Amino acid sequence: MALMKSWVGSANSADCPFPLNNLPYGVFSVDDGEARCGVAIGDMILDVTEAEAQGIVDLAGTPLFDVPYWNDLMEQGPAVWAALRDRLTTLLAEGAAERDEVEPLLVPMARATLHMPMAVSEYTDFYAGRNHAFNVGTMFRGPENALPPNWLHIPIGYNGRASSVVVSGTDIRRPWGQLKGPDDAMPRFVPCARFDIELEMGAIVGTPSEGPITVAEADANIFGYVLLNDWSARDIQAWEYQPLGPFQAKATATSISPWIVTKAALEPFRCDTPAREFELLDHLKDCGPMLYDIDLAVTMAPAGKPATTIARTNYKEMYYSAAQQLAHHTTSGCPMTPGDLLGSGTISGAEKSERGSLLELSWGGKEPITLDTGEIRSFIEDGDTLTLTGAARGDGYTIGFGDCTGTVLPALADPYKR
Amino acid sequence: MALMKSWVGSANSADCPFPLNNLPYGVFSVDDGEARCGVAIGDMILDVTEAEAQGIVDLAGTPLFDVPYWNDLMEQGPAVWAALRDRLTTLLAEGAAERDEVEPLLVPMARATLHMPMAVSEYTDFYAGRNHAFNVGTMFRGPENALPPNWLHIPIGYNGRASSVVVSGTDIRRPWGQLKGPDDAMPRFVPCARFDIELEMGAIVGTPSEGPITVAEADANIFGYVLLNDWSARDIQAWEYQPLGPFQAKATATSISPWIVTKAALEPFRCDTPAREFELLDHLKDCGPMLYDIDLAVTMAPAGKPATTIARTNYKEMYYSAAQQLAHHTTSGCPMTPGDLLGSGTISGAEKSERGSLLELSWGGKEPITLDTGEIRSFIEDGDTLTLTGAARGDGYTIGFGDCTGTVLPALADPYKR
Repeated sequence: MALMKSWVGSANSADCPFPLNNLPYGVFSVDDGEARCGVAIGDMILDVTEAEAQGIVDLAGTPLFDVPYWNDLMEQGPAVWAALRDRLTTLLAEGAAERDEVEPLLVPMARATLHMPMAVSEYTDFYAGRNHAFNVGTMFRGPENALPPNWLHIPIGYNGRASSVVVSGTDIRRPWGQLKGPDDAMPRFVPCARFDIELEMGAIVGTPSEGPITVAEADANIFGYVLLNDWSARDIQAWEYQPLGPFQAKATATSISPWIVTKAALEPFRCDTPAREFELLDHLKDCGPMLYDIDLAVTMAPAGKPATTIARTNYKEMYYSAAQQLAHHTTSGCPMTPGDLLGSGTISGAEKSERGSLLELSWGGKEPITLDTGEIRSFIEDGDTLTLTGAARGDGYTIGFGDCTGTVLPALADPYKR
Repeated sequence: MALMKSWVGSANSADCPFPLNNLPYGVFSVDDGEARCGVAIGDMILDVTEAEAQGIVDLAGTPLFDVPYWNDLMEQGPAVWAALRDRLTTLLAEGAAERDEVEPLLVPMARATLHMPMAVSEYTDFYAGRNHAFNVGTMFRGPENALPPNWLHIPIGYNGRASSVVVSGTDIRRPWGQLKGPDDAMPRFVPCARFDIELEMGAIVGTPSEGPITVAEADANIFGYVLLNDWSARDIQAWEYQPLGPFQAKATATSISPWIVTKAALEPFRCDTPAREFELLDHLKDCGPMLYDIDLAVTMAPAGKPATTIARTNYKEMYYSAAQQLAHHTTSGCPMTPGDLLGSGTISGAEKSERGSLLELSWGGKEPITLDTGEIRSFIEDGDTLTLTGAARGDGYTIGFGDCTGTVLPALADPYKR
């Protein structure tokens, strides 16, 4: 597919993350006005809430955008999703008949504040990147036992906290937590000293389901994708995670990119999951290309310093697709709802420079990394800004998500000394 | 405290679970009418939604009961909770001046269908009963290593699925799942063969919080309690739970009792947590009696047969209180919201007859139990009805929750053969 041209000129460059081919959904406000639904086009945002209020966009006969989140559209299902995308494409395409009506509804992105694009119903985080699982397993159990026995048969995951999901740009407060180091006689309650990122993609469930669904049905139910950083307190995790999995180590915050890129925009970038070591059981079998070729990168910037790219990888490094994860999520009959967010798990490539967490990049702190600005890092220090970026590259155009960024603030004074 | 008398005569017997001392909150409908908020009194339900519509109940100046859940009240905080309880007590007490206005708002409980009393925001399940953790640990790792190293220092828990929480009376469909027995060469996708209950109490968060809160603050933020049965697929759990904890094994359903018993109603039954093997760190220290003396029981009834009581225990068997669990839940900064549900973890006493799961009662299937009706059970069979009951016993009165019951239906035909 080639670049589709828009009358919004800034959308027509090969590097612009928001060409007419993309049309990602977000929520924005201007000055102190109320938050509203918008679609990114070039360096502008089309106010979809206002477009609906004026009757320029009219779907399903019922208002979908009079609320500051996209869940009402998600719930409508694929036919309405396609109808909106068609309508927006018509309105914003080069030569559009309705340009005069639409142009007053554009807001410069530079003037807008971006908010959470959806109400997160529930949040699940998977562990479905093989290089990441192998690296972490090797650090903890040696390379022979790196992958848990179930890993090649099911996409392992755990439920996270929806209440802790925040939009890109939100500052992240270094957490306190109980931990016990190998040399400690007793546990201590201290600020996290091994605070980390996890480079992930998030899949957003649109259509609800009640019972078990197939991988093909799961793919059909997915509304879109975001970049996702699952902030992780490694020292808290090490003490708490046996036998019930990560809990407070993952509950400080999870950041997502401000724009939901729809499945439709990503269609040209579909690719296959990797070769299988063991054949998957029927309920998890691949039924077409369900991963996406999306370049991903992580940058780290100490306070007041320029950013260094510390990792580059690609979403196609996943072993399980989001559709397989969602299908697995429903096997026991678990109901899924619009706004459910599924983190892919940390995405790491095979090379050292392709690792999606500091835990892997610094090999548990044993091999600290050096930034271009000279600082040495094993884990995140106060004031560091971590940013995820993602781009699918088409023929003369780019599909972007907006940065997924956060700055880590110092821990509070002891929260229990009041 | 003694029985408080109501002009609703059925509320005044020592065995009635819903005396004036209780006033638990639920959601009900009659015939096919719309669901509304109600409070149980004797064998009647007072229609609180209608009482508010008529101005008989007026709190906070804003409607709280025009929706079929109690979350709007929860959000208001302790002062409004107390005001409602005072007002309801006044309206329903013997000799109430407003009896003539209130009496037409009573609905016989026998005519009502009970619904979920709240919208569950998120659901967390703990593992904080010592006898249960010891029993399960002994089965899997032997008595010397039964308790994980962190167990005596933090209330271990994991996030569950809010979407799978259902009200008592909802049928429970036996799940399918991927599992691999010790003698299997490869995993299989089959119906669960070791389907189980977990006898728990659920604490409901009322007041929201943003950062870390103390145990005392956590106690103040709790709105009330329900009975909770965390249905568990033991064979699925055994294969999936390492290293990230239970996932699909716990996602089929969690049943709760239809009535939320408020913290106020339980005040006379407060009791201390047990002696501590290790002193807890400051953020988890007990700050008063935060458990409750509530008798609990489980019955099992094969299809068409009378029920057998298979376990009796008490909520005071917990090692950690709900307040300690909630405080721990916030240590990393995790935001908590009205309607968050915290399962206590399975409650087992020290004796064999006091175990709150079939896993423990049948010792992993090695010592099947025999019901009064002659059937032999290691785990749940299709058609079995499992019921939890709870009662706090005061001086001449009883505080009840309503039964928490569910019947297990046969697994669907293979959900992927369509």
